Amino acid sequence: MSKRKKKVGLPPGSVVYTGSIQDKNIDIHFIQYDEEHLEEKAYSNLSKIVFLHSSEVKVDWYDVRGIHDTALIEQIGKTYDIHSLILEDVSDIHQRPKYEEYKNGIFLIAKALKFDKTSLSVGIEQVSLYFKKGFVVSFQETETDLFLAVRKRIQNDKGKIRLHGADYLVFAILDIIVDNYFIVLEDIEVAIESLEERIIETQESSIKSEIHHLKKELLVVRKSISPLREAISRLSKTDSPIVERNTEIYLRNVYEHTIHLMDTVDTYRDVLNGLQDLFISEVSFKMNQVMQVLTIVSTIFIPLTFLAGIYGMNFQNIPELSWQYGYFALWAIMIIIFIGLLIFFKRKHWF
Amino acid sequence: MSKRKKKVGLPPGSVVYTGSIQDKNIDIHFIQYDEEHLEEKAYSNLSKIVFLHSSEVKVDWYDVRGIHDTALIEQIGKTYDIHSLILEDVSDIHQRPKYEEYKNGIFLIAKALKFDKTSLSVGIEQVSLYFKKGFVVSFQETETDLFLAVRKRIQNDKGKIRLHGADYLVFAILDIIVDNYFIVLEDIEVAIESLEERIIETQESSIKSEIHHLKKELLVVRKSISPLREAISRLSKTDSPIVERNTEIYLRNVYEHTIHLMDTVDTYRDVLNGLQDLFISEVSFKMNQVMQVLTIVSTIFIPLTFLAGIYGMNFQNIPELSWQYGYFALWAIMIIIFIGLLIFFKRKHWF
Amino acid sequence: MSKRKKKVGLPPGSVVYTGSIQDKNIDIHFIQYDEEHLEEKAYSNLSKIVFLHSSEVKVDWYDVRGIHDTALIEQIGKTYDIHSLILEDVSDIHQRPKYEEYKNGIFLIAKALKFDKTSLSVGIEQVSLYFKKGFVVSFQETETDLFLAVRKRIQNDKGKIRLHGADYLVFAILDIIVDNYFIVLEDIEVAIESLEERIIETQESSIKSEIHHLKKELLVVRKSISPLREAISRLSKTDSPIVERNTEIYLRNVYEHTIHLMDTVDTYRDVLNGLQDLFISEVSFKMNQVMQVLTIVSTIFIPLTFLAGIYGMNFQNIPELSWQYGYFALWAIMIIIFIGLLIFFKRKHWF
Amino acid sequence: MSKRKKKVGLPPGSVVYTGSIQDKNIDIHFIQYDEEHLEEKAYSNLSKIVFLHSSEVKVDWYDVRGIHDTALIEQIGKTYDIHSLILEDVSDIHQRPKYEEYKNGIFLIAKALKFDKTSLSVGIEQVSLYFKKGFVVSFQETETDLFLAVRKRIQNDKGKIRLHGADYLVFAILDIIVDNYFIVLEDIEVAIESLEERIIETQESSIKSEIHHLKKELLVVRKSISPLREAISRLSKTDSPIVERNTEIYLRNVYEHTIHLMDTVDTYRDVLNGLQDLFISEVSFKMNQVMQVLTIVSTIFIPLTFLAGIYGMNFQNIPELSWQYGYFALWAIMIIIFIGLLIFFKRKHWF
Amino acid sequence: MSKRKKKVGLPPGSVVYTGSIQDKNIDIHFIQYDEEHLEEKAYSNLSKIVFLHSSEVKVDWYDVRGIHDTALIEQIGKTYDIHSLILEDVSDIHQRPKYEEYKNGIFLIAKALKFDKTSLSVGIEQVSLYFKKGFVVSFQETETDLFLAVRKRIQNDKGKIRLHGADYLVFAILDIIVDNYFIVLEDIEVAIESLEERIIETQESSIKSEIHHLKKELLVVRKSISPLREAISRLSKTDSPIVERNTEIYLRNVYEHTIHLMDTVDTYRDVLNGLQDLFISEVSFKMNQVMQVLTIVSTIFIPLTFLAGIYGMNFQNIPELSWQYGYFALWAIMIIIFIGLLIFFKRKHWF
Repeated sequence: MSKRKKKVGLPPGSVVYTGSIQDKNIDIHFIQYDEEHLEEKAYSNLSKIVFLHSSEVKVDWYDVRGIHDTALIEQIGKTYDIHSLILEDVSDIHQRPKYEEYKNGIFLIAKALKFDKTSLSVGIEQVSLYFKKGFVVSFQETETDLFLAVRKRIQNDKGKIRLHGADYLVFAILDIIVDNYFIVLEDIEVAIESLEERIIETQESSIKSEIHHLKKELLVVRKSISPLREAISRLSKTDSPIVERNTEIYLRNVYEHTIHLMDTVDTYRDVLNGLQDLFISEVSFKMNQVMQVLTIVSTIFIPLTFLAGIYGMNFQNIPELSWQYGYFALWAIMIIIFIGLLIFFKRKHWF
Repeated sequence: MSKRKKKVGLPPGSVVYTGSIQDKNIDIHFIQYDEEHLEEKAYSNLSKIVFLHSSEVKVDWYDVRGIHDTALIEQIGKTYDIHSLILEDVSDIHQRPKYEEYKNGIFLIAKALKFDKTSLSVGIEQVSLYFKKGFVVSFQETETDLFLAVRKRIQNDKGKIRLHGADYLVFAILDIIVDNYFIVLEDIEVAIESLEERIIETQESSIKSEIHHLKKELLVVRKSISPLREAISRLSKTDSPIVERNTEIYLRNVYEHTIHLMDTVDTYRDVLNGLQDLFISEVSFKMNQVMQVLTIVSTIFIPLTFLAGIYGMNFQNIPELSWQYGYFALWAIMIIIFIGLLIFFKRKHWF
Repeated sequence: MSKRKKKVGLPPGSVVYTGSIQDKNIDIHFIQYDEEHLEEKAYSNLSKIVFLHSSEVKVDWYDVRGIHDTALIEQIGKTYDIHSLILEDVSDIHQRPKYEEYKNGIFLIAKALKFDKTSLSVGIEQVSLYFKKGFVVSFQETETDLFLAVRKRIQNDKGKIRLHGADYLVFAILDIIVDNYFIVLEDIEVAIESLEERIIETQESSIKSEIHHLKKELLVVRKSISPLREAISRLSKTDSPIVERNTEIYLRNVYEHTIHLMDTVDTYRDVLNGLQDLFISEVSFKMNQVMQVLTIVSTIFIPLTFLAGIYGMNFQNIPELSWQYGYFALWAIMIIIFIGLLIFFKRKHWF
Repeated sequence: MSKRKKKVGLPPGSVVYTGSIQDKNIDIHFIQYDEEHLEEKAYSNLSKIVFLHSSEVKVDWYDVRGIHDTALIEQIGKTYDIHSLILEDVSDIHQRPKYEEYKNGIFLIAKALKFDKTSLSVGIEQVSLYFKKGFVVSFQETETDLFLAVRKRIQNDKGKIRLHGADYLVFAILDIIVDNYFIVLEDIEVAIESLEERIIETQESSIKSEIHHLKKELLVVRKSISPLREAISRLSKTDSPIVERNTEIYLRNVYEHTIHLMDTVDTYRDVLNGLQDLFISEVSFKMNQVMQVLTIVSTIFIPLTFLAGIYGMNFQNIPELSWQYGYFALWAIMIIIFIGLLIFFKRKHWF
Repeated sequence: MSKRKKKVGLPPGSVVYTGSIQDKNIDIHFIQYDEEHLEEKAYSNLSKIVFLHSSEVKVDWYDVRGIHDTALIEQIGKTYDIHSLILEDVSDIHQRPKYEEYKNGIFLIAKALKFDKTSLSVGIEQVSLYFKKGFVVSFQETETDLFLAVRKRIQNDKGKIRLHGADYLVFAILDIIVDNYFIVLEDIEVAIESLEERIIETQESSIKSEIHHLKKELLVVRKSISPLREAISRLSKTDSPIVERNTEIYLRNVYEHTIHLMDTVDTYRDVLNGLQDLFISEVSFKMNQVMQVLTIVSTIFIPLTFLAGIYGMNFQNIPELSWQYGYFALWAIMIIIFIGLLIFFKRKHWF
């Protein structure tokens, strides 16, 4: 978050990149399609890029991967008449998911998540979408191709995507982001289940920090889903002519998925809290057992050792010492004490 | 949940079965009735099935048990003009309970629950209902006959079910699902009460994981009831002509039951949390007792053993050793210390 | 709750008694009154009962005590044209408090509570009220005369009750039920205070299960009050002509009492949670003290006993043993160690 | 609360004193003022009191201190035409703060609080206010002069109070009550801070019951403020002609204070919960230290004492005993073990 | 808060300084600007100050630093016709952030925060803003120049600030306050992360009070942001002509930031609670380890020492003592017991 400091005091609308990637290439994938035609270009040399003026008949999608070149963002902004507050948000990777309607177009921020199973950590990629009739531009920070499946559906004839406009494309992008949340949560579920097993088998010290870690990662997921749910809800209810009635039923479907996701996240949090309690009680249960062994051994042998000490004393006049079977009598007494205490502990259910 | 992965990137409306049952037969029970007539057929050979076009006078109910044959679902969808998003949801067994109104009909998802008393675990069966005037189709994953009681009421003349339309049949199905929730909660209550008794009697290690387990199962029940409550509320308030005014009073009754169920689930969660606290305090109370015994035994015998050790030393000049009654004097001192400490502990209420 | 099982699959409106009282008599107390006249009858032989048709001028109140005779309930239902769903609820003792408006009359369920101070447990009696102009019928499961005070006010001229209609009588009944809640909560308060004192004085093992028990009883009280509050709120705001404007101000008063009750219940829950924390910390504090005594005794005597052991060894060449004042020198050393450790522990504030 | 029992079954509007003060005098302070005139009387002999009929031009304020004389309350009620439900509430000291609008006037209940710094407990005084144009009557249980500052402002020319009507006087009374809450909370803050210091310095057993006690007192404060906030909100938004537009801006100010108070109370609760956690962890941390000392001492001396025991045995054939330097060799071995264990514990960071 | 006491009983609108700074200078920075002109003055000698009557064409901003001179505040109030309730709030440094619309202008209170990294504590500075067309006055308690960045943007031609009116200036001030919150939270995040590392490495006693401290500071931040969010929301939705439509989009942006901040604060609280749990379980885990060492050492050596004690007894007839290899046999037995117990503990996973 320390990039915030750069921005304090700057006028609103200042396009400042707040991430840490500086030396990577910026890739721009361009697709133009309608029901019949399809044109695709991938630019990695930005000097050659030509920004077409959208026709509203075909759909133009610029998929920009890399946002550290603020000049490029400002150029795109100028070409397609995008409000400077939008450009500011695009270049700031610490935005909350949100939905904003402007006169010319609609702006959306979502967070694409990825779960790394070895480090059990959630990776975040901020996706900014700006669209109007026949035009969509998406921004992300890294080069990862998040929307391969969407492009495949455009390329194949099967998908209905070519029959619809820019709003349906945005739906398809959001749909794939939300679908990925399910996969992330599945992976987290697997991690939780393996934790649960390990708690019952062993009580390694590391488990508690893993639980703590997973809870933090779930907070990250929650912070990504919760405002996105609201954003999609508002998108699905918009009056804007940019979104067609037909698309809304699909958006409502995505909205239901986000509700489902929130439910699941909250359930997992409850489960993790339960695991934490379970871990603590497992540990204290084991300590209990250990303590009981100590108690039993001590409580039995301390009096016996005391008796042995008594007859180890060097008083000149200890009558028992000169008895013929004194030693054996003492053993008998000790064994009676030993067995008596064992029975006492058994009755108390101490072992 | 790992079936989610198959679906990422597919266009919406793709009918993909996400469960694990593949080789079981699919049974379809068909009932057609009105006040006077009743016809019943059970198909397990699907090739012979004939889908009748609903007359709106009689009620046709197709009870489909088995959803792994997506071709069949798509055929039913085509025959009765059901939206592809509905078919997608029917074949995905990981849906949240929900209510959706479409132009032609109403779609509902509910979860039928079953509690297994030995494993203390809740089994879930997703039930999807689609209905319009004179036509109901219900889908479930397994062969279990969930709605036997409903069919019996249709067969017997007693039930009012034959006097009403498809909406009342849907109510009867929902009513039986919700009634089953009460039985599940009763069984859980019995399990909780037996846990409570066992906590006070013994402090077995397994109790804490059973509490944890029951809490997880209650979360499952809660996730089934909570959205169903909302769905039934919306169904009971619908303006759709498919649902008649007379049925609404019955639906409101079911709705009240779901509220009652939610109350009960929340109460049980509170009770389970209380049991957990009780268990921990029982365990630590017992450990306390154990520790006190250790303390008392140690605190009494450690000084006595020390004294015995003193007179076990081999110094050439220990005057006490040669006293005539030194040994007996020491015993007297030791007994005084012993009794003194017992009184001290008694006063401190340490035993 | 196990009576639920009997009912699964029955059509709605089936009058099934779900309680366990079977062999008790059913008493019906009948009062008819207006400003000037008063007639009272108590039937315990049900064959002699005559159900009058209400005149709307006088108020007829049938106070039915005992609901296991479902035929009787159905007869009353038929006589006064009561909806079958109401009769079903009347005979099911596991209903939530609720308020329902029907075309002919208003139906209310409340729970009368009683606190048993020895067992610290809350007894529940379900009271169902159905009323319309000039007619009130109340149902309860046992013979207890819950509404003696109301009947006394009707008999005496003092009470304003004779000047008003059936709605005011219903208010008076609800008022007495709600007033009883205050008494129950007072008793619970007394129980909580005695628990608090006992926690500070002794740390008996039973206290924690008593706290747990009281928390469960408070949950019962809460589940009785919370929906009743809603029911009374809706009754006080009704547009039904059965309830007169004048009565509403009194109903709002009862409504305020239920809010007050909810506040109190929640406060008590907080107090009980606090007591639980207090108990646990008292117990662990005491264990702490016990541990400290053990530590002090062990830490002092273990090194001393070691020293005594050293000079109890039988090596042929231990020079100190033959020193004239070796024994006394060792005592001196031991006393110095003893006092030194005491000072050390005192400095550490360990006792 | 045990006074409740007296009231069960009484008709609504019964004026019953529920407090415990019986033998104190009742004082009535009367002030009549407008912009120019001011008349003040203090009655302690109630027989001499004259109740003036309010003129609506001047403001008459009867400040009644003592409510155990229900006849007096009923007389005031009759003189000024106050609804019997109001009189009932005035004489019942266990009311929740509330706001009620009647045809003739407005009725308000608030709780004046006082914090006793030695016993750390909150004292409650219920203040009931009834007012209409030109007339205010306030009731409280004890003789304490709560509203001295208000009377002083009326007596002095400075205050704007004389320029306004009865509604502004009510505002001034509420304002002083709410201002006193801030003082109570300040005192509680001081108490919390002193607790915090004491937790870090010492771990006295009494601290935990003090925290528990303060939490209970905060619950009392919360229960006084929370409904008052609502009452003032409704007063400030009223359409009643009794409250003038000008006064509303002042009432909104008081309302904001109550919000601020609620915030503060909730913050203090959080802080107290935090203190409780802190106390428990301080105590267990200290116990930890104590245990570590025990462990170190035991773990070091137990093996050494064992060795000493070995060579205290009386076997006829123990070769080491006859070695010339056996005793010194054993000392050397013991010192090596001693130092070795110290280093081991140091490495483990156990001390 | 103890300044509250000074104010109880004073009439509303009394301007009383409630802070503790008395002897510092008061600085007033004055800026007057429109698109083309810019005039700046800094007064520290208040006698020379001239209050200009605002022209509504240019924007006049008085930045008053120091509020202990209540006469000055009252003079400003009189000059610019500011309501006395506003002046009272300005001089009381314990106000909640709030938004109030008056006939002539708009009044806002916000809290500027600063985080001190060494003491990990949050410093609060209350900023009061009053503005109308062409006029802004801001008050703060200390001399710190909080709004340097805003003045720089006014001085530079770059910022759009000169093109807009007083409302945009207020936005810029709020924006800088809110931006500072992000920096405070970043610093807190760094503090939390360093705590997390230290918990895993060491278990110093001080960590728990640091967690407690940070939680208290977060409560302070929360209490500053939460009402400010509401205030900004109401400002951005106002109908007042003082705020122009163009500014609203910027205000909504600030509003979104406050939502983001609240999210972050709540997340941090969750994380701190998690850390507390982690700390407690780390400490008890370590104690566990220590206890296990004690148990192992005691459980092994206590029986061995007992055996040694047995053969240290002085009975005349102990046959084993005279056996040739009795001593070595005992050693063998002891070593077998030693190893046996080690294996037993190993199997139990106790070390």
